[in-house]
Amino acid sequence: MPLIDKHKCFGGWQLRHTHTSTKCQSEMTFSVYLPPQAESEEVPVVYWLSGLTCNDQNFVNKAGAQRAASQLGLALVAPDTSPRGEDVPDRDQFDLGQGASFYVNATQDPWETHYQMYDYIVQDLPGVVASEYQQSMDFDREAIAGHSMGGHGALVIGLGEPQRYCAVSAFSPVCAPTQVPWGQQAFPLYLGDDQTTWAEYDACELIRTAPDVAELPPIRVEQGLDDNFLEEQLRPDLLEQVANDTGADVQINRRAGYDHSYFFIASFIDEQLTFLRGEIDRSTEA
Amino acid sequence: MPLIDKHKCFGGWQLRHTHTSTKCQSEMTFSVYLPPQAESEEVPVVYWLSGLTCNDQNFVNKAGAQRAASQLGLALVAPDTSPRGEDVPDRDQFDLGQGASFYVNATQDPWETHYQMYDYIVQDLPGVVASEYQQSMDFDREAIAGHSMGGHGALVIGLGEPQRYCAVSAFSPVCAPTQVPWGQQAFPLYLGDDQTTWAEYDACELIRTAPDVAELPPIRVEQGLDDNFLEEQLRPDLLEQVANDTGADVQINRRAGYDHSYFFIASFIDEQLTFLRGEIDRSTEA
Repeated sequence: MPLIDKHKCFGGWQLRHTHTSTKCQSEMTFSVYLPPQAESEEVPVVYWLSGLTCNDQNFVNKAGAQRAASQLGLALVAPDTSPRGEDVPDRDQFDLGQGASFYVNATQDPWETHYQMYDYIVQDLPGVVASEYQQSMDFDREAIAGHSMGGHGALVIGLGEPQRYCAVSAFSPVCAPTQVPWGQQAFPLYLGDDQTTWAEYDACELIRTAPDVAELPPIRVEQGLDDNFLEEQLRPDLLEQVANDTGADVQINRRAGYDHSYFFIASFIDEQLTFLRGEIDRSTEA
Repeated sequence: MPLIDKHKCFGGWQLRHTHTSTKCQSEMTFSVYLPPQAESEEVPVVYWLSGLTCNDQNFVNKAGAQRAASQLGLALVAPDTSPRGEDVPDRDQFDLGQGASFYVNATQDPWETHYQMYDYIVQDLPGVVASEYQQSMDFDREAIAGHSMGGHGALVIGLGEPQRYCAVSAFSPVCAPTQVPWGQQAFPLYLGDDQTTWAEYDACELIRTAPDVAELPPIRVEQGLDDNFLEEQLRPDLLEQVANDTGADVQINRRAGYDHSYFFIASFIDEQLTFLRGEIDRSTEA
């Protein structure tokens, strides 16, 4: 698996690889931060899913997460937000196609061949990361996080695999995609018109229909109150409502003055990584 | 003065402005980080000068400096690395012209009209920043820092105005431009063939010819040992030699495994900002 970038960073290593994804039938790119602790022990893994228009580099370059990860002893795995390439279907808009997978397994033509991003994140990516870093990471201690469309991805993957991820951290997530324009545009194209299939990719629906909310991972949401997408696309109020209705462990931190940018993420990433590390330790001890 | 970007960040504000530079006869862009303390007091100012190919955004997005600045109560002012625009002379190479001013006051045609970056940093920029932020910043407490060509800029400006800046922090700086290819290419074009004029822009020469090295600001250099430019272009060994010869206060921190990237800068920016804040306080009390 080709290593295409490598930089020492906070005593550890910031790395970038390409590989061929079986699930997405595409060349894919991802980044890994290995903290210094990984030289002598297997460290827990936090996946970071980025948002619309992003690739694996936005988080790596802009979030400043490596500092806290080096202190907490966390590996960070940041995939791309979709398959890429000339063979991969795309649309000439920022919120559909390449860079805008919404982390679904598409069932509709022309998307279904390549857009299998849910399975990519849950199965394919951990497999290829393990093939290179088995000695450095402990894949029995995982958590998942993300921003915006990637916050949606972290929520639905964390809720969809409740035995797998110890906790979920979501910055400015799309909390109820079946009820907002971004989801209502993308889901019919990726998933078809049967809205029952959409519910598998809607955090609110996954909580509402969970057999036992006590089995779901704890969720922390960071939301800036000056975020331009807050009221139309993100809707943390709907997530809060379903958490209140069901008793799911969801805490929403509303931050006055903050917007949708990586300056917001950087401001609270330490707090969220500390939360994830704590939950990883708690669920491992339990 | 137009405000073109604004984000809340670590309790303070990341801001970006354009203005018309008198010295450079050009539209210029710069960024400011105002820490939360600036709401109630005038905070000290650290200027950050970036390197070849950069503008004001690289440091803002990639260094993760706002976290420490918010804790230390430091304003960060990040200018562009040269004048820009269709009227501004340029060359089709990364190490000359736009993005590659070397922070000199050019004396040669066609550069002299716009490339007055030393005066821009020392006079023009603080003036326009003060016009907007006089109530938030204390321009009697300043320090200067930078990376690569901007590390060179921080050194020569800090040494050239020894009463002005309390301390200098230079990451991977070009320490002796008159002796290395980057300087030997740029200085004849910007300054002419008389090498005595080059010495004003060479940190080693400025230390060697200083009337009293005790008057010079303390200098801390961060240098990665896996930096591709180390031996040919940067030459901290020459800076160390002249410091040893003269007794100037220069400390060079050599960091095994680190390269020339912002991952290196991010890893040590907290330490350097802490140093600058300490020297600002010490020289103000003195």
